[in-house]
Amino acid sequence: MAQAVETMDGWYCLHDLRKIDWVAWKQASPAKKEEAIAEFQAMLTDWEAIDEAKTGSHAVYTTLGHKADLLLMILRPTMKELQEVELAFNKSALAGFTKQTYSYVSIVELSKYMAKEGEKPEENPGTQARLRPRLPKWDHICFYPMDKRRQGNDNWYTLPMEDRRRLMYEHGMTGRKYAGKIRQIITGSMGFDDWEWSVTLFAKDALDIKKLVYEMRFDEVSARYGEFGSFYVGNILPQEEVPTFLQI
Amino acid sequence: MAQAVETMDGWYCLHDLRKIDWVAWKQASPAKKEEAIAEFQAMLTDWEAIDEAKTGSHAVYTTLGHKADLLLMILRPTMKELQEVELAFNKSALAGFTKQTYSYVSIVELSKYMAKEGEKPEENPGTQARLRPRLPKWDHICFYPMDKRRQGNDNWYTLPMEDRRRLMYEHGMTGRKYAGKIRQIITGSMGFDDWEWSVTLFAKDALDIKKLVYEMRFDEVSARYGEFGSFYVGNILPQEEVPTFLQI
Amino acid sequence: MAQAVETMDGWYCLHDLRKIDWVAWKQASPAKKEEAIAEFQAMLTDWEAIDEAKTGSHAVYTTLGHKADLLLMILRPTMKELQEVELAFNKSALAGFTKQTYSYVSIVELSKYMAKEGEKPEENPGTQARLRPRLPKWDHICFYPMDKRRQGNDNWYTLPMEDRRRLMYEHGMTGRKYAGKIRQIITGSMGFDDWEWSVTLFAKDALDIKKLVYEMRFDEVSARYGEFGSFYVGNILPQEEVPTFLQI
Amino acid sequence: MAQAVETMDGWYCLHDLRKIDWVAWKQASPAKKEEAIAEFQAMLTDWEAIDEAKTGSHAVYTTLGHKADLLLMILRPTMKELQEVELAFNKSALAGFTKQTYSYVSIVELSKYMAKEGEKPEENPGTQARLRPRLPKWDHICFYPMDKRRQGNDNWYTLPMEDRRRLMYEHGMTGRKYAGKIRQIITGSMGFDDWEWSVTLFAKDALDIKKLVYEMRFDEVSARYGEFGSFYVGNILPQEEVPTFLQI
Amino acid sequence: MAQAVETMDGWYCLHDLRKIDWVAWKQASPAKKEEAIAEFQAMLTDWEAIDEAKTGSHAVYTTLGHKADLLLMILRPTMKELQEVELAFNKSALAGFTKQTYSYVSIVELSKYMAKEGEKPEENPGTQARLRPRLPKWDHICFYPMDKRRQGNDNWYTLPMEDRRRLMYEHGMTGRKYAGKIRQIITGSMGFDDWEWSVTLFAKDALDIKKLVYEMRFDEVSARYGEFGSFYVGNILPQEEVPTFLQI
Repeated sequence: MAQAVETMDGWYCLHDLRKIDWVAWKQASPAKKEEAIAEFQAMLTDWEAIDEAKTGSHAVYTTLGHKADLLLMILRPTMKELQEVELAFNKSALAGFTKQTYSYVSIVELSKYMAKEGEKPEENPGTQARLRPRLPKWDHICFYPMDKRRQGNDNWYTLPMEDRRRLMYEHGMTGRKYAGKIRQIITGSMGFDDWEWSVTLFAKDALDIKKLVYEMRFDEVSARYGEFGSFYVGNILPQEEVPTFLQI
Repeated sequence: MAQAVETMDGWYCLHDLRKIDWVAWKQASPAKKEEAIAEFQAMLTDWEAIDEAKTGSHAVYTTLGHKADLLLMILRPTMKELQEVELAFNKSALAGFTKQTYSYVSIVELSKYMAKEGEKPEENPGTQARLRPRLPKWDHICFYPMDKRRQGNDNWYTLPMEDRRRLMYEHGMTGRKYAGKIRQIITGSMGFDDWEWSVTLFAKDALDIKKLVYEMRFDEVSARYGEFGSFYVGNILPQEEVPTFLQI
Repeated sequence: MAQAVETMDGWYCLHDLRKIDWVAWKQASPAKKEEAIAEFQAMLTDWEAIDEAKTGSHAVYTTLGHKADLLLMILRPTMKELQEVELAFNKSALAGFTKQTYSYVSIVELSKYMAKEGEKPEENPGTQARLRPRLPKWDHICFYPMDKRRQGNDNWYTLPMEDRRRLMYEHGMTGRKYAGKIRQIITGSMGFDDWEWSVTLFAKDALDIKKLVYEMRFDEVSARYGEFGSFYVGNILPQEEVPTFLQI
Repeated sequence: MAQAVETMDGWYCLHDLRKIDWVAWKQASPAKKEEAIAEFQAMLTDWEAIDEAKTGSHAVYTTLGHKADLLLMILRPTMKELQEVELAFNKSALAGFTKQTYSYVSIVELSKYMAKEGEKPEENPGTQARLRPRLPKWDHICFYPMDKRRQGNDNWYTLPMEDRRRLMYEHGMTGRKYAGKIRQIITGSMGFDDWEWSVTLFAKDALDIKKLVYEMRFDEVSARYGEFGSFYVGNILPQEEVPTFLQI
Repeated sequence: MAQAVETMDGWYCLHDLRKIDWVAWKQASPAKKEEAIAEFQAMLTDWEAIDEAKTGSHAVYTTLGHKADLLLMILRPTMKELQEVELAFNKSALAGFTKQTYSYVSIVELSKYMAKEGEKPEENPGTQARLRPRLPKWDHICFYPMDKRRQGNDNWYTLPMEDRRRLMYEHGMTGRKYAGKIRQIITGSMGFDDWEWSVTLFAKDALDIKKLVYEMRFDEVSARYGEFGSFYVGNILPQEEVPTFLQI
């Protein structure tokens, strides 16, 4: 029996993907639209205060293509609070002009694969900040869920710990080349959603997202053991640009 | 030919997942909404009486994400009664503001893999309580369907009984570590629904759901033989909080 | 080249699965509802006369869960007559309150795997009754489509006839244990629908459906060669209970 | 590198599958319905003239089950003309009461697997008629798309030409047994649609469709290399029966 | 660990597939329709000016079948500009009569597999033109996404660089036969969309699309390592033919 490596877990996380019903939105009265925008802006202001207070964090991006127009990423200390944020948004006027096309429930996670013998990474001061991160306001986002493969000879969960540790270490080295260019948030979702993890990448230059994912695809851990879901990519939607984005 | 281990079967079980149409709900008149809530509350009161009488059981949770907003889990002695509960809910006013996005038909099941030679586990007094369980009112729920794999060299159904028994035993040992933290209900669904079993976990702390599922993924029985469907996770919706949940 | 065993073929068969739109049905006027029920009852009476005349057969069951509320199973001597029944139902008032969520086109089939050397099973008096069966009015139904696997080393269609015959024989022996408890109708659907066969089980006790499917899963023919579609399970809807079922 | 066998290509082909919205159709005024039927009849008359002029061909069948009610199969010399037929139908009144649930874009194709050394099959007088066929008015149709498998050891595209030729020859022999009973049109669709080929079978007796597909499933080329999409089956809809079919 | 070959990246690319709601379009008033067409024509004129200025490019084709009626392919220097084009189209009157059924986000890419030792292909004058191409106005288009397989023994990402180089070279030779007949645009989409690359083929003769894809299927790189998504095929829609296409 292969041994599970321990994980450290931080804030609960919801990725909430929305498609806007532009026809219905266009038909709404100017007053209705203004009210919906104002209510959403107020919600964003509240979320920002939570970010400032370090009791949660959030990110708002527009996404390209038919899968979604809007990506909300919300971090909160408990699953109950996370659901309350989703519920409040669902009840808002703006949400009534959207369809929730995808979502992902998970929890910020750090594995202890890199931990040295005897070390307690959870006591590392940086660890706590990484488990309860303030999401950056970088220009681009990329979100996708993933599994580790369990198929024939390519079964991650039957690999000895030492092999998994080595593969994860190599993978980490590839990621490290993008320090300062890409900020990566890993969340665990076993028991919470349909894939095992989600990956969220924040980038200053969108091309670095492709470069990183492409280079990592050749790491043995991805090449042999990675299974990937849908990829959502987009541009930041700063609060002050919400009215322009929705102007019609 | 590998031999099928016998099972013990208890109450029939329906998982009923619903997405709320918040736009339609918001547009309903206050009187209509009040009536719909009152009718649902009365239904919950009836269900609770059945729980008290030990002639069935139920659980009501809100779930996160696009897949569903509401999870009803209903246990009844016969398939006919189970369908009558679903039918009554379908005809209710509240159901008219929901879309049934998923469901699962199964029956509470205990396998005899752990039974010792000559032992009759069905005569064990605890067994009857486990086959006709009163569902706990714990804070969190996780529900997912699953199969045992039949693929190339990883074919559960061609394994000798002794191997299956050993793998199930190890798996049971992992589960036992979570005693008091996680309550697990296994239901069998061959011939009843699209997967072979469903698993429902009740937890006081949502993180224990992830820890259990993660740790079990390394058990050989999961790593080589487990195939998993969608995971639904959420928070308890106590009857008295229904109006708040639906207030809009 | 493996040799195809001959089949005997009887009546054409349509499984027609319907989800009821309870919101639209509730909103219909009492007169409209009464008319729709009366028209459906008249159709059932006509179908029953065809059963009596042994020129076809039918079964009407309610099903549990999100996949469907109603299962109509129709047997007729020709594909043209089968389509006419579906068309007539599609044009009926009740059908206008339903969505056809699934269906299956096939033909009652008996294989000659069990036939002894020199025997002509089609001349067996029982064979004709099995090819043009009168469907029983038992309490429960289970319907699912299936394929024989063609994958790597598990390829049914490259197995020598003798191996297929042995595996089918063993499988038949498992089924025989449920004589009197389960009535099984096998239909062939190559060229007619997306899977290769459909299986319909009628049971007095719903639990026997699970027991049979579970036990058979360990037969080598299922364990290595069976691929299964969705399972639909439910309770009989006698003609006289239609008004109660639809009362809202 | 395995060598591609050459193909001969004829008319472009569109399979257009439609589900009828019977509720909307029933609600249309008698005048609207009459007009829609007359317009469709006029279109069929035009198509028939094209058949007569041998500048294209078409077939109209009703299909059973939830996947579609109507199958239009259209052959034209160019992709542009093919699209114009689809566009004209899309703009017609009848199309407004249908949903296009599936379609397939391809081109009539004959492979040269059977060609003898030095022979030029394209100069064969029968070849031209087979590449630009007049579709028969036989009672039944069966349409399905398919791929040749590329999986592990079962990879059609790495097989030596001689092996492919032998397998296709055997397959052809199975088909030849149904001469006069089944007329088969093969179309190629690489680069045009999601599968590699489509198969359309016309039959006088629907049972021959099943017999042919069943027998062929045991041919090595199907058993090891065939991957099949959805099957659509149905009955001919002669132009003069259109009003009866649509009468409601 | 296999080594990733470097790529050169050019303009960002959006494929935007639309299904037209012909019923709603027919019901719109003549004034509304005229306005929608004029607005779309103005948008096309703006896009054409960008083509002329070499600050982007675009292509507009009609497509056959149920998957889409319209394919817009847009190239822009940044992901932000790309999203602005999509957003502007989403807000337009014509878009309100369409449903976005598929889309693809990627970036024009050239790999350096063919690069000779010491050569810097990015300094090649032709390279820049290929990374920021002006899309041709050829009669036909074919678009599809694809992956390189990572399955058992057929794992592209664990192949040594030299093997990948050889396979890509052979593949390039097949493509070269179609010079002047097919213009091919490869875009990379790792981290941007659900497949790894997209391929867009422009052709003067639609049959060349099938011939190329068919011949390439036998290249080892496709036969063993190619996984393909949906194929979209169609005819050019010149700006001046837009009114005819939409006339109803």
